[in-house]
Amino acid sequence: MRESPLFWPVSLKSNTILCLDETALPQELIYLKARNLNQAINLIKSMKTRAFGQVLMAYHIFLLLLKKSKELKPERQIKVLKKAALEINRSRPTFPFSFFTEMVLVWAGEAKKKGKDIPAFTENRIKTFLSYLKEKRIAQARALSRLIKDRDSILTHCNVSGSLVLAAQFCRKTKKKIRFFVTETRPYLQGSRLTAWELQRARFKVTIIPDSSVAYVMSKGLVGLVVVGADQKAQNGDIANKIGTYQIALLARHFNLPFYVLSPPPSGAKTGKDIKIEVRAGEELLEFWGKRIAPKGAKGFYPAFDITPHKLISKHITLGL
Amino acid sequence: MRESPLFWPVSLKSNTILCLDETALPQELIYLKARNLNQAINLIKSMKTRAFGQVLMAYHIFLLLLKKSKELKPERQIKVLKKAALEINRSRPTFPFSFFTEMVLVWAGEAKKKGKDIPAFTENRIKTFLSYLKEKRIAQARALSRLIKDRDSILTHCNVSGSLVLAAQFCRKTKKKIRFFVTETRPYLQGSRLTAWELQRARFKVTIIPDSSVAYVMSKGLVGLVVVGADQKAQNGDIANKIGTYQIALLARHFNLPFYVLSPPPSGAKTGKDIKIEVRAGEELLEFWGKRIAPKGAKGFYPAFDITPHKLISKHITLGL
Repeated sequence: MRESPLFWPVSLKSNTILCLDETALPQELIYLKARNLNQAINLIKSMKTRAFGQVLMAYHIFLLLLKKSKELKPERQIKVLKKAALEINRSRPTFPFSFFTEMVLVWAGEAKKKGKDIPAFTENRIKTFLSYLKEKRIAQARALSRLIKDRDSILTHCNVSGSLVLAAQFCRKTKKKIRFFVTETRPYLQGSRLTAWELQRARFKVTIIPDSSVAYVMSKGLVGLVVVGADQKAQNGDIANKIGTYQIALLARHFNLPFYVLSPPPSGAKTGKDIKIEVRAGEELLEFWGKRIAPKGAKGFYPAFDITPHKLISKHITLGL
Repeated sequence: MRESPLFWPVSLKSNTILCLDETALPQELIYLKARNLNQAINLIKSMKTRAFGQVLMAYHIFLLLLKKSKELKPERQIKVLKKAALEINRSRPTFPFSFFTEMVLVWAGEAKKKGKDIPAFTENRIKTFLSYLKEKRIAQARALSRLIKDRDSILTHCNVSGSLVLAAQFCRKTKKKIRFFVTETRPYLQGSRLTAWELQRARFKVTIIPDSSVAYVMSKGLVGLVVVGADQKAQNGDIANKIGTYQIALLARHFNLPFYVLSPPPSGAKTGKDIKIEVRAGEELLEFWGKRIAPKGAKGFYPAFDITPHKLISKHITLGL
């Protein structure tokens, strides 16, 4: 089973982070380089990497900084990690980076307390956790595949970093024939550019539709269930995910279709109301790859995420961390 | 009160139809020329003109052909008009062209029966009808303006050919302050390119949002009502309009918001089920202004319209023809 490049899009090679450029897909499959904290943070801010890629990026920033800080004193080593955690947490407001960065600080603190070599100890913990995370993601995809029936047609929105492809591959193993409808997902078109690409690459049937045609395809009986990811899950099960998820969930409810979420561990937010929604520059709507769409002086409003209340979610397929 | 160029986008100058190029807006305000039936039909098929522009185009095709057929025998004159009506009716499947083309054939038949000069008589009837249509469209916009309250925030989708701007101008006259949210309306972006442009040009506050953010802006209380147009209205009040209208209507119902339709006279269709939906080439979703978005070999599904059942429509603001 060939893994989608989106499943594990970040790695470290000597002193360089290699990061799949998700904005260049599907035209080019290229890896960008980050050699320091700033460069890596900019890859997150400019959405070169996103979704699960952001988690990997956070850990790889620490791996890089640990490597570079071997000669420093323990206090200084801890300081470097703390600064990085702060920068990572601040990079994009809706994604709960602190869940991941906190554990690195805890490991480093543990090493210091026990008088162990901070870089070696922490690096080891991160690597162990990453293998564990990989196993958990595979198990999550397998759990999703069990909810999918033969001949199912699945609607998805945005991109869930290889997990949906993996679930589809598990379906194939058990001889279930399935097909996909993918919304374009304006303005970044993650649906057209990433999800359609990785599903097609793995030889699944996939049809791209406008974000505006969800009710239409549902009303025609063309889709049987919805699967999306989540950038953040509150403790009550509300999720923040790519703008558009909320209305798809409302429509799924109207048409009586199951709405499944591949979700991360709960964050500190009690409910969706406690999750801060990132509003990106309106300009991102007004031009397309450098070409102006809207009239001069127009105003765009681009909330990058919305909150889907837990009542609209049929089932969370959790990572089980 | 300055009229939006979209309110009356087609005219005839000597032997040439001038047609506002709605695909070039808002970057360029240019008029394309059609000197024969084929050229004119292609402007409709390629969506250079659309919505009300198509109605005007149909009448202007007849005006052009009548002018050119002055020297022909009556039988031949009728034949030319019949062929044109057939070509117009077939040009795009969802728009009920026959409502408009039929009346021209009736007028020409009347002239022939009475032994009158067919071109002169029919041209006169068309011109009279067009002035009447203009008055009716102005009255329709005025009727809509009466439904809008001071401080209202109006969500619209696609473009209703200047009628919404005109309604807004009537609101301004009566000192009502209003503002607009406009969906982008993928893939042709009529919202960003046309509606935002004409509203902004008339100095109204307008914000462009992704098609996927309708539930979000409604849930935040940012919009108070929805206004859309309709490409076709069935006899029971169901409408066919730009893909996305149906889900906006469902969401408006969920959030308890009025959903108004600026609608044409009813067509021959009894209900929405009798309206044929135009499915345009999937490729129109897969590239943007010549630049490829989706992976090679991807499949797109682009139903250009959907049906909104009358139960979801709070009020039809009709032309009263």
